[in-house]
Amino acid sequence: MSEIITSDPSPRRMADAIRFLALDAIARAGDGHPGAPLGCAEIATALFTRHLVCNPDDPEWPDRDRFVLSNGHGSMLLYAVLHLSGYAGIPIEAIRRFRELDSPCHGHPEFAPGHGIEATTGPLGQGIANAVGMAVAEAKLAAEFGPGLVDHRTYALVGDGCLMEGIAHEVISLAGHLRLGKLTFLWDDNLITDDGHTDLSISEDVRARFRAADWQVIDCDGHDVAAVSAALLLARADPRPSLIACRTTIGRGLPRLEGQRGAHGGRVFDSDCAEAREAAGWEAPAFAVPPDIAAAWRRGAAARNRAAYAAWQERRAALPEATRAEFDRRAQGRLPEGWRDALRTLRRRAAEAAPERPSIEVAADTLAALADTIPDLFSGAPDLEGPTRHKQALAAFTAENRAGRYLHYGVREHAMGAMMNGMAAHRGLVPVGATYLVFSDYLRPALRMAALMELPVVTVYSHDSIGIGRNGPTHQPVEFLASLRAMPNMLVLRPADAVETVEAWELALANRHGPTSLICSRQPLPPLRRGDSAENLSARGAYVLAEASDGPARATLIGTGSEVAVALAARARLQQEGIPTRVVSMPSWELFAAQPEAYRAEVIPADTVRVAVEAAVRLGWDRWIGEGGGFVGMAGFGASGPGEDLFRHFGITPDAVVREVKARL
Amino acid sequence: MSEIITSDPSPRRMADAIRFLALDAIARAGDGHPGAPLGCAEIATALFTRHLVCNPDDPEWPDRDRFVLSNGHGSMLLYAVLHLSGYAGIPIEAIRRFRELDSPCHGHPEFAPGHGIEATTGPLGQGIANAVGMAVAEAKLAAEFGPGLVDHRTYALVGDGCLMEGIAHEVISLAGHLRLGKLTFLWDDNLITDDGHTDLSISEDVRARFRAADWQVIDCDGHDVAAVSAALLLARADPRPSLIACRTTIGRGLPRLEGQRGAHGGRVFDSDCAEAREAAGWEAPAFAVPPDIAAAWRRGAAARNRAAYAAWQERRAALPEATRAEFDRRAQGRLPEGWRDALRTLRRRAAEAAPERPSIEVAADTLAALADTIPDLFSGAPDLEGPTRHKQALAAFTAENRAGRYLHYGVREHAMGAMMNGMAAHRGLVPVGATYLVFSDYLRPALRMAALMELPVVTVYSHDSIGIGRNGPTHQPVEFLASLRAMPNMLVLRPADAVETVEAWELALANRHGPTSLICSRQPLPPLRRGDSAENLSARGAYVLAEASDGPARATLIGTGSEVAVALAARARLQQEGIPTRVVSMPSWELFAAQPEAYRAEVIPADTVRVAVEAAVRLGWDRWIGEGGGFVGMAGFGASGPGEDLFRHFGITPDAVVREVKARL
Repeated sequence: MSEIITSDPSPRRMADAIRFLALDAIARAGDGHPGAPLGCAEIATALFTRHLVCNPDDPEWPDRDRFVLSNGHGSMLLYAVLHLSGYAGIPIEAIRRFRELDSPCHGHPEFAPGHGIEATTGPLGQGIANAVGMAVAEAKLAAEFGPGLVDHRTYALVGDGCLMEGIAHEVISLAGHLRLGKLTFLWDDNLITDDGHTDLSISEDVRARFRAADWQVIDCDGHDVAAVSAALLLARADPRPSLIACRTTIGRGLPRLEGQRGAHGGRVFDSDCAEAREAAGWEAPAFAVPPDIAAAWRRGAAARNRAAYAAWQERRAALPEATRAEFDRRAQGRLPEGWRDALRTLRRRAAEAAPERPSIEVAADTLAALADTIPDLFSGAPDLEGPTRHKQALAAFTAENRAGRYLHYGVREHAMGAMMNGMAAHRGLVPVGATYLVFSDYLRPALRMAALMELPVVTVYSHDSIGIGRNGPTHQPVEFLASLRAMPNMLVLRPADAVETVEAWELALANRHGPTSLICSRQPLPPLRRGDSAENLSARGAYVLAEASDGPARATLIGTGSEVAVALAARARLQQEGIPTRVVSMPSWELFAAQPEAYRAEVIPADTVRVAVEAAVRLGWDRWIGEGGGFVGMAGFGASGPGEDLFRHFGITPDAVVREVKARL
Repeated sequence: MSEIITSDPSPRRMADAIRFLALDAIARAGDGHPGAPLGCAEIATALFTRHLVCNPDDPEWPDRDRFVLSNGHGSMLLYAVLHLSGYAGIPIEAIRRFRELDSPCHGHPEFAPGHGIEATTGPLGQGIANAVGMAVAEAKLAAEFGPGLVDHRTYALVGDGCLMEGIAHEVISLAGHLRLGKLTFLWDDNLITDDGHTDLSISEDVRARFRAADWQVIDCDGHDVAAVSAALLLARADPRPSLIACRTTIGRGLPRLEGQRGAHGGRVFDSDCAEAREAAGWEAPAFAVPPDIAAAWRRGAAARNRAAYAAWQERRAALPEATRAEFDRRAQGRLPEGWRDALRTLRRRAAEAAPERPSIEVAADTLAALADTIPDLFSGAPDLEGPTRHKQALAAFTAENRAGRYLHYGVREHAMGAMMNGMAAHRGLVPVGATYLVFSDYLRPALRMAALMELPVVTVYSHDSIGIGRNGPTHQPVEFLASLRAMPNMLVLRPADAVETVEAWELALANRHGPTSLICSRQPLPPLRRGDSAENLSARGAYVLAEASDGPARATLIGTGSEVAVALAARARLQQEGIPTRVVSMPSWELFAAQPEAYRAEVIPADTVRVAVEAAVRLGWDRWIGEGGGFVGMAGFGASGPGEDLFRHFGITPDAVVREVKARL
């Protein structure tokens, strides 16, 4: 790109270029959120034209700084900045069509690293936590590959709302604890939220709150590009993470709404754009950027970083072949060659001589066995290291040891969920989080973002049913299989024994375009699959585990997880009574639904009596058992008592399955 | 009860009585969490025998102090204390059978105010937030009825884990902002979590964090009953909420585990009980409390409060009849006589002349219209006052105005959810919370607790589908109807027009034994129900909205919410083509499922082609449409674009419904 060399336009005009792109786009769309793009224009100008290390011509450069717009409703800020910086994925036509179906400029930013969009943000608090996960990934990869290859910073622009959300406090605490010194939050401290002045709902000393968590806190005028820039230098010089509190005026430059509540998400009219132009002395027409300003943006956001980019490419090129290949693999998010081999061995071993074991133990051992083969694996279990066994030989990732591969998240499930998303979006790590299934609700908003962003994040859950026993209904999931199955793009796996657990791990890792929930038992499960099979049978979602004998099946029993054994026991009884009965193990609805209809009809024949057994609510099972099918499961919450007593108490027994079948024959 | 008058036993022995009941019960059960009951025995002794105002003979005395065991895993602490205090619901037999199916001493405490159990706790952070909600309810009711009737304190015992959870930070901030001076947290500051020493996961200055939110912070030795007691006096003297940081040793008195990680949830053996007895010089056999100690506990926990209780009863008796009746009604959680009348008027008005309106507006207006009739209603919408319109004429509840009925929660959805549970458990308020449907995931852990506790909490959701348009998939729910329907004891209502919205409000209020999700649209909905009906048709869950004409129905179209209009448009076309078609509106699956089978078969006849239309995922619909039924809805996440474009883009149109029907005729 050839450049027109001119003297630098004033920082105010650089920022106004953001303002008018945002205003024009929001006015044309008919809705949007003008407050943040206008209020944060100087902050973004300071960051993007003077500090952020990136290359708009190579948006996915692995060693780029990461920028997350946590207050995602201000999406036009991001699109304007990316356009001005020269990201080809955000041309002016895309901005013109802000919030139309065919535009990459969606209502809220949607993960598209090729366009410079590092995370999907909108639900407040998620972006902040993503940024902390990215900073963890950076620190870990820097420890592995050295600062010549990995040495970048992570920035998040955050609003008042982000800082009120609980998840923010979880990650503020953790980021301070981990001393993530390359992490900087730029706080749009405008004293306004959607409801009005912040004093309606907060009187907390936010600065003191950050200091309590061992952050550096810097104050500055958020409308002074030089002041923000100086603050960013201070942030770089401190070993702690930094909060830069930028005092701003919401909707700055929009006379009718500036400084007011209505600026947050209020409608912008053409008359507003005209008034704003008048006030700013901005003469360029809608969607036009004056050439001197466009050139200065390119110089600041692109040309400034060229030397650094070239030097990095040289360092990469100079690496030994194997190191370079490994780095590239990690940066591209591919798994290493041969990653399935270790799993095959494990599966064979499980099939040969499996004792009764809790599937959470098998899952944990599988992770441990994969750790050498897949150095990308990065584990954590919010204060449930013991029950989930997901640390084992892994060293802890700490402020002192960045090479560690296990993060002690503390009792902060939501933080874990969103930080894993940040790690996966950053690339270089394959995050694995373990907790109890009931706590998946605590991280559910983050799971949804993983599903939306199509991130390969694996969550392993223990304590999957009333089988946990005496801890009682607060800790007994009954609705969670259904609620996870309801989420688009979420792969849910509930293995029935050790072999299926190893298979499930293989499927979880193979799932590169969405999150996986691997759901395990606390109580021991008997081995059901004997002898090795060449194929990963769980990959088809459901398969015939035990064929009917003495004739074609009259009944098909379908089970998942610990209830497959219940189905097998029921089958034995039915067979004894002369009723040929098939048992289908169904570790994954999503995978089964994706099979050809012929396979599905073959596995669960519609002309047999179909009875499902699962220690959970019925919701959704009618799809598989058909009208008039039987279901043995839970109708409400669990109770506190020994696990075996509970299965009897709630009637999840072979007897009950037998009754359901007979009633239908 | 006659009492043996003796000199007071030492505070240590008073506390040891808790310890040995807990140890014996946990050892007998074979699992449990000894760490907290042993570590907090002195704290509980100080609170219950010297400060807490309660009456074990009248556990539901409305003006009792509330105590929440937020670290619910330490349930044996609570059971032991309640037993020692003289609560008849917790006899020694119940403690002996701790964690058995027939015992009220469940693995984690389960809401049972008649037994002295103020909240179901276990999932960390919930109890803390419940307590804050209780303190809000107290302040509000004190403003209404005066300190002669309502003047009590709220205490929560919290662990390190509780304070790491995001929700805790939301309520810490809010409680300080609201200056809830009668709220005290007792922090079991034992430096240990399940994973080990707290320095694994936190280095935050917790005291400074509380001070940043304007709390009083007091330090004391948690094993010195006198010190804890003195700290409790300081807490009462300060207008701010107070944190009492009690330095303790986890598992104190259990030689093998004391001070160690394993004490949190480790197994306790008979040999441990013997060693502990040896160390403490405790000679009483298992489950026995020495008479002098039992008597001292009754004196401290029961007799101490007798005069206060009697005085309160006198004040209540001296009230004017109407005031007393109103107070009793509120305290018992009954709705006022005639509460349905205002709704009937609203419904009639909606049926007569309803313009096209967003159902969230109708819901908000319904709440406003009920506000005078039901003074118990207490509203809030986390920073979405404008879009949800759930404030209207209600004054804000603030530090200065305790009479207000609208809480500015800030951007703290999870806090709202759990605080509403606390208000409902406290009684006297009917909490109503409003937010966008996608944010229900943020408060989902609290919704689950409301469902478990069977609390009458109403959450009104706006922005129920892709109908919201340009804000994009982060803000477009597709899986939320299914995930809420999956939750036991959750009533889900999705009204189709203004009349159904008013009906839904009636059903929500009538639901006194569980939470309700009232799901509304942002976009205007056309009026569908014309003319008044004597009956609340939504009460049956589903009903025939438009009967087939020109013959018996060959097709039944089932819709909810905004998609009922789609079904009606499809019906018009099908009728034109000579296919008699019925439309069923189905605002609630739960209510329909509870109808007699005959009614269900009559409304959705199995011998018709059944097609459902709902702008959400299919999960669960097969139950209603049968095998081979049709479904028109969403298969994945939404997109950013105008709402009408999105319905077309995702094929949720009358055309699509017609096609589904014809393909099946």
